[in-house]
Amino acid sequence: MHLHAQHQPIAVMRADCHVCRAEGLSSRSQVLITSDGRAVQAMLYQIDSDLLALDEVALSEDAWDALGIRDGDGVRVSHAPVVESLAGVRQRIYGRRLSAADLSAIVRDVAHGRYTDVQLAAFLTATATLPMSIDETIFLTRAMVDVGDRMQWRAPIVVDKHCVGGLPGNRTTPLVVAIAAANGLVMPKTSSRAITSPAGTADTMETLAPVELSLAQLQKVVETEGGCIAWGGAVRLSPADDVFVRVERELDIDTEGQLIASVLSKKIAAGATHVVIDIPIGPTAKIRSREAAERLAAHLGQTAAHFGLTLHCLYTDGSQPVGRGIGPALEARDVLAVLRNDADQPRDLRERAAMVAGAVLEMGGAAQPGLGVALASQTLDSGRAWEKFQRICAAQGGLREPPRAAHVQPLLALQAGRVTHIDNRKLSRLAKLAGAPERAAAGVSLQVRLGDEVARGQPLLFLHAESPGELAYALEYARHAGDILSIEA
Amino acid sequence: MHLHAQHQPIAVMRADCHVCRAEGLSSRSQVLITSDGRAVQAMLYQIDSDLLALDEVALSEDAWDALGIRDGDGVRVSHAPVVESLAGVRQRIYGRRLSAADLSAIVRDVAHGRYTDVQLAAFLTATATLPMSIDETIFLTRAMVDVGDRMQWRAPIVVDKHCVGGLPGNRTTPLVVAIAAANGLVMPKTSSRAITSPAGTADTMETLAPVELSLAQLQKVVETEGGCIAWGGAVRLSPADDVFVRVERELDIDTEGQLIASVLSKKIAAGATHVVIDIPIGPTAKIRSREAAERLAAHLGQTAAHFGLTLHCLYTDGSQPVGRGIGPALEARDVLAVLRNDADQPRDLRERAAMVAGAVLEMGGAAQPGLGVALASQTLDSGRAWEKFQRICAAQGGLREPPRAAHVQPLLALQAGRVTHIDNRKLSRLAKLAGAPERAAAGVSLQVRLGDEVARGQPLLFLHAESPGELAYALEYARHAGDILSIEA
Repeated sequence: MHLHAQHQPIAVMRADCHVCRAEGLSSRSQVLITSDGRAVQAMLYQIDSDLLALDEVALSEDAWDALGIRDGDGVRVSHAPVVESLAGVRQRIYGRRLSAADLSAIVRDVAHGRYTDVQLAAFLTATATLPMSIDETIFLTRAMVDVGDRMQWRAPIVVDKHCVGGLPGNRTTPLVVAIAAANGLVMPKTSSRAITSPAGTADTMETLAPVELSLAQLQKVVETEGGCIAWGGAVRLSPADDVFVRVERELDIDTEGQLIASVLSKKIAAGATHVVIDIPIGPTAKIRSREAAERLAAHLGQTAAHFGLTLHCLYTDGSQPVGRGIGPALEARDVLAVLRNDADQPRDLRERAAMVAGAVLEMGGAAQPGLGVALASQTLDSGRAWEKFQRICAAQGGLREPPRAAHVQPLLALQAGRVTHIDNRKLSRLAKLAGAPERAAAGVSLQVRLGDEVARGQPLLFLHAESPGELAYALEYARHAGDILSIEA
Repeated sequence: MHLHAQHQPIAVMRADCHVCRAEGLSSRSQVLITSDGRAVQAMLYQIDSDLLALDEVALSEDAWDALGIRDGDGVRVSHAPVVESLAGVRQRIYGRRLSAADLSAIVRDVAHGRYTDVQLAAFLTATATLPMSIDETIFLTRAMVDVGDRMQWRAPIVVDKHCVGGLPGNRTTPLVVAIAAANGLVMPKTSSRAITSPAGTADTMETLAPVELSLAQLQKVVETEGGCIAWGGAVRLSPADDVFVRVERELDIDTEGQLIASVLSKKIAAGATHVVIDIPIGPTAKIRSREAAERLAAHLGQTAAHFGLTLHCLYTDGSQPVGRGIGPALEARDVLAVLRNDADQPRDLRERAAMVAGAVLEMGGAAQPGLGVALASQTLDSGRAWEKFQRICAAQGGLREPPRAAHVQPLLALQAGRVTHIDNRKLSRLAKLAGAPERAAAGVSLQVRLGDEVARGQPLLFLHAESPGELAYALEYARHAGDILSIEA
């Protein structure tokens, strides 16, 4: 059948089949499907037609993968067992705090696919509406590390970086890894796919090289080159997080407690000892004020300290996007331009990357305090970063050219004047409606920055889409969304 | 295909079809399907196989019904429009209170099927974790009434009753309606199906007579007989509530604000002027203390007053189930036994019904203050209630015999002693695992009450199931759940 249900295991059976009758299964029952010692929990849909024989079960792709079976193999279907940890979720919905044991049980069941999307949504919402305490955040982080794989390194210092996001196009990671590794540091970087943004680092990097590395492949790349830029989901560093992210994306929510547990669980599992956190601040960034940034930094620091992790938080300008591209391939092109020292490279992306890499170099002991940024810039100027990046890509499976969109259309200035405000959220929304991140070539390519003077009819940005339907969808939003960029005469 | 997805509209298309490519649709996209002026929003699943032709769309039963089309008819498929009211849900997730306009937009979109289950779960959880204010509850009630149908009656007084639930088997409604109508009151009773319980009144009543009456049918029954016992969902008095209930059931949550809005929106839409609310109080009932009951009564009263509705709250004993049956058909048999004055009728159900009916008779002016219970009992004794009930069932489409379960097994006392505690929640769970309410004949038939002396090996209850799988599932729970009934030597 090859049913794609975006990582949701689904089983389809005849309503009148023997198993459904004997077990009393109804549509949307949770069922346990087992075969040869492997098991997957799936949602059951029932049909009343001869598309399936009475003794056949159709499975979605994720259910096939989890069972590791082939067409025609036998499976057993029964009621899924009662998920005991849901009692904790229900209590949390009504405001009771969760213990380490509660969260451990919840995260184990989530990682094993025993929660429906509705149950995941309830857990995530409850911990957003009554935000998680530091204790709960620590328990959740610990639980998320415990159900995943761990990486071990011989180096005494292992660096990492993370950006709390909310700033479209802020794709410094590939640059920072290349600079750090070129200076001898160990930086096994695993990144996520987009949660609510038009591109995650893994989405962007995937347009340049393979990112779905196994744990063994990843360790080999890092041992050879000092660094990598891989997708964290493939190495199962925090498998529960990968489940949460899918539902957070559908809800378009991203809470502090989940954010801290998500980031730190992966850093801990990846074996990091020193981590730079980039916190962009701006009126339409995820973090809107210095106070909010400092509070987040404090909560991150408190949680990290509990696990012996050293953090350094950088507060950066979040008033407008970084670079020009917003969307996987468009951001990848910006990264290549900076690495290659192209004449028209986005200077802001280069400077932001040098700032973050500078902090990483200093934390890792590769630069004296205060000299990190200069070393980072020099690493870019000299081409050493570009050389290292190519070697990392080759080790990951080969550097490739990012795709280009089939449909490109400009959004023109309706009046002459100066750009006084850029709405990051609306820009992100626009790029997502154009198809990012699912369509790698889709997104927005911004042509102006804050303070630029523009003429009437000058392109403010280009919309990139892979299909006319998505282009139309994004254009319709652009027409009705109000000011995405404000221009004052 | 006849795909049953429990009221979830689903569309299945080829991933490589022209529409999916042109529109950039991916799996789990929300799509808008239109045909001849009718529209339904559905979740898209994609397949990579020739089960479907490139220009075919398969739909779940609910999508078929919403579109009112037939096999082979043409439809248009496009991206579902952006649901603007979700912005309010997201803000509510982060703790901002909702305005009347926010809730009106949310409820309109929910009633029109524009929310996914994940989004519904988030809304319901957010309003559980940070409980709704009285203002929000009033706004929600108003919004729920506004999107539904309204009933109008010539009578100046229209009575109704509601039990806040949590007490298995407390099936007084059919009895109260028969008593009230037999005494000349107008009582157009619409009931819900189970939310988190093993049976709702509509589920129980459906085993005795048709309950899916149209608005016109319902009005005719009430004009002729003075009362009816119909399923509220069929008359769309509060269509948004029917959507919420489906997800509340999956989450097994039931919050005060939703409860108040759900109950009152239906009473207002049904044209009621005077309503008796039965609030059972007990350690394992939904309401556990007199204080909680008084707080709920106060919030119900405040909200009702805003709509000109007069309420009378009764605090009743919620320490154990009422009657013997727990599950649709088993409860229906208890109701019949009371109406027919059977020698072995459950006395507690009879007394509870007389108490609630007494309050209804007094509020409606059919009995002097203090004399309602006596009149109610006399109406049962004389057979007038049974006669009225038969007439109502006939008017609804005909009285029928409730089904009997194919598989019945006793749960025996493991020791002799006195019954000191009955866990309502575990009993409900047990009845649900046996198949209630989806399997009408399934459930529990309780053989003892608090204070009874039992011998070792005496049946404490009988489990009723329609399939061996469900019986086994319930038995397994009974073995591991700890004390469902406590017996002390």
